[in-house]
Amino acid sequence: MNITLEQAEKIIDTAKEKAISINTKMNIAVVDSGANLIAFVRMDQAWLGSTDISIKKAKTAIFFGMKTGSIGELSQPGGPLFNIEHSNGGLISFPGGIPIKDESGKIVGAIGVSGSSVENDHEVAAAGVAALSVFA
Amino acid sequence: MNITLEQAEKIIDTAKEKAISINTKMNIAVVDSGANLIAFVRMDQAWLGSTDISIKKAKTAIFFGMKTGSIGELSQPGGPLFNIEHSNGGLISFPGGIPIKDESGKIVGAIGVSGSSVENDHEVAAAGVAALSVFA
Amino acid sequence: MNITLEQAEKIIDTAKEKAISINTKMNIAVVDSGANLIAFVRMDQAWLGSTDISIKKAKTAIFFGMKTGSIGELSQPGGPLFNIEHSNGGLISFPGGIPIKDESGKIVGAIGVSGSSVENDHEVAAAGVAALSVFA
Amino acid sequence: MNITLEQAEKIIDTAKEKAISINTKMNIAVVDSGANLIAFVRMDQAWLGSTDISIKKAKTAIFFGMKTGSIGELSQPGGPLFNIEHSNGGLISFPGGIPIKDESGKIVGAIGVSGSSVENDHEVAAAGVAALSVFA
Repeated sequence: MNITLEQAEKIIDTAKEKAISINTKMNIAVVDSGANLIAFVRMDQAWLGSTDISIKKAKTAIFFGMKTGSIGELSQPGGPLFNIEHSNGGLISFPGGIPIKDESGKIVGAIGVSGSSVENDHEVAAAGVAALSVFA
Repeated sequence: MNITLEQAEKIIDTAKEKAISINTKMNIAVVDSGANLIAFVRMDQAWLGSTDISIKKAKTAIFFGMKTGSIGELSQPGGPLFNIEHSNGGLISFPGGIPIKDESGKIVGAIGVSGSSVENDHEVAAAGVAALSVFA
Repeated sequence: MNITLEQAEKIIDTAKEKAISINTKMNIAVVDSGANLIAFVRMDQAWLGSTDISIKKAKTAIFFGMKTGSIGELSQPGGPLFNIEHSNGGLISFPGGIPIKDESGKIVGAIGVSGSSVENDHEVAAAGVAALSVFA
Repeated sequence: MNITLEQAEKIIDTAKEKAISINTKMNIAVVDSGANLIAFVRMDQAWLGSTDISIKKAKTAIFFGMKTGSIGELSQPGGPLFNIEHSNGGLISFPGGIPIKDESGKIVGAIGVSGSSVENDHEVAAAGVAALSVFA
C-alpha cells in the first residue's frame, strides 16, 4: 500500500533532473500513504524556507488525497475551507504537492516540491510522479 | 559566508540610530545565512509583540533570499503563495525584513525590524543593511 | 521596574569581555522582569544550540526569581520539582541564568549564558550581573 | 563551509549500505552547518518514530559540535546538563548523531541515524561520516 524507498528515490532523482533542466533549485519531499516522510533532498543553494514547505506540500496532498492547489482553491476568503491551513500543524495549499497512485489508482504516497514559482514547483512534482510508472 | 557579530552589532547600532532619528522604538534582529540568530535588541518601550515579529522577519528574508514585503505581495488571497505564512513555524510577510549581501552579492545574513509602521520598519532595516558597506 | 536597553547592553558587553578573557565563545541573553527578551548576542563560532539555551536560562531565572542552578537542584529524580523543565515551553535548570537586581534588591531582569561548561557559563553570567552596579 | 547535496547523498548511500550489512532498517538524516536539513531517507519497514529522532540527532550534533552520546553523558540526573533535551525544540542525546568535518577539521554538517540499538545507530552514522573522505 506504500511506495518503497527505492521508488521514492527514483521519484526524487527524476524530479531533480527536471529541476536542473528548467534551471531551478528545489526542495523535494516524498511521504508515504500515512503522511510520514520517506525521502527528502535540498538542492545546493535552494531556499532554506522551502524545506518545510516541500514537506508540508507532500503531507497536505496525502491528507486530502488531492493536489495542494485544489485545496487552495477552496481555502480562499469566502470559500468553503477558508484558512484550513491552520490545521495539522500547518498546511500548504498552493501548487507543488501531488498524490502518487499505483497502477490500480490507489494512492500510495505524495510528492511535495518547493523552490521556484508555483508553476515550476508543480512541473517538477509532476515529473517525479510520472517516474513511478517505470515500476508499473 | 556569514556576517560576524561585530558586523551584526554595527548593523544594529546603525538601525537603532535611524529608529531614534525618526522617533520610533524598534525591535531589531540579525540572523546569519543559516537563519540562526546572531544579535537582537529591543529599544525601551518598544512593543513586546514585535520581538518575535522582528526575528521572524529576519528569518523570512533569509528563507527565501528576498525582502519580506515581496513575499507578502504573493501571499495575498488569490495570490500564488496564499497563506505561506503557515510554514517554518510562522513567517512574517510584510515589510521590515531584508537580506544582507556581501561585496560579491552573496547573501550572508538578514535583518528584521518591527515596532512602527511597515514603512518605518523597512526604512530602519534598510539603514541597518547599508551599514555593512563600512566593512566592504 | 525594568532594566533599560542601555543597561542590558552594558551587561552583555561586560559578559562578553569576561567570555573572551576565559577563552570561551558564548551566547548571552538579557530579559526584563516580564521575561521578555531585551538583548542577545551570539559570539562568532559559539554553539548554535546555545542560543535557545541562553534565552531559556534568562527566562527561567526570571520565572522563579532565582539562579537556574537552584531550580536544577530541585528538579532531579525524587526531588520536589522533578521534571519542571516541561513547563513554560521548556526550562533550562542548570547554571548560567541569574536574576539581576537593582540597588533596592528588586529583581529587574535576568541574564542567561550558554556556550561552555556550566561553571564558565555561570562565571560569565555573574560578570554581566556585576556590571549593573555601574549604574547604581 | 557546508557539505553539498552530492556529498550528503554519498554519505547516506554509504550509511544505508552499512545498515543493510548489519541487518537493520534505519532513518538517516544529514544537516548542514546551520542545522538545516539537506537529505533524508527512511528505509522500508524502519520505525516511523525514528524519522524525527534521526533529524534531531543530526541537529543536536551540529548544535554543540559533538557526538550526541557525549551530550547524553552530561545530561543524566545529577549531571551538569540535566534535561538539556528540553531546549531547541527537543534534543536527542543518545548515540547516533555525529558531526561531519572537512579535511581541515572544520565542521561542515552532521549525520543522524535512528532505527535500531544505539550501538547500531552509531555504527551506521560513523560509516556515513567516513564516506566523506572520498571527497577529500
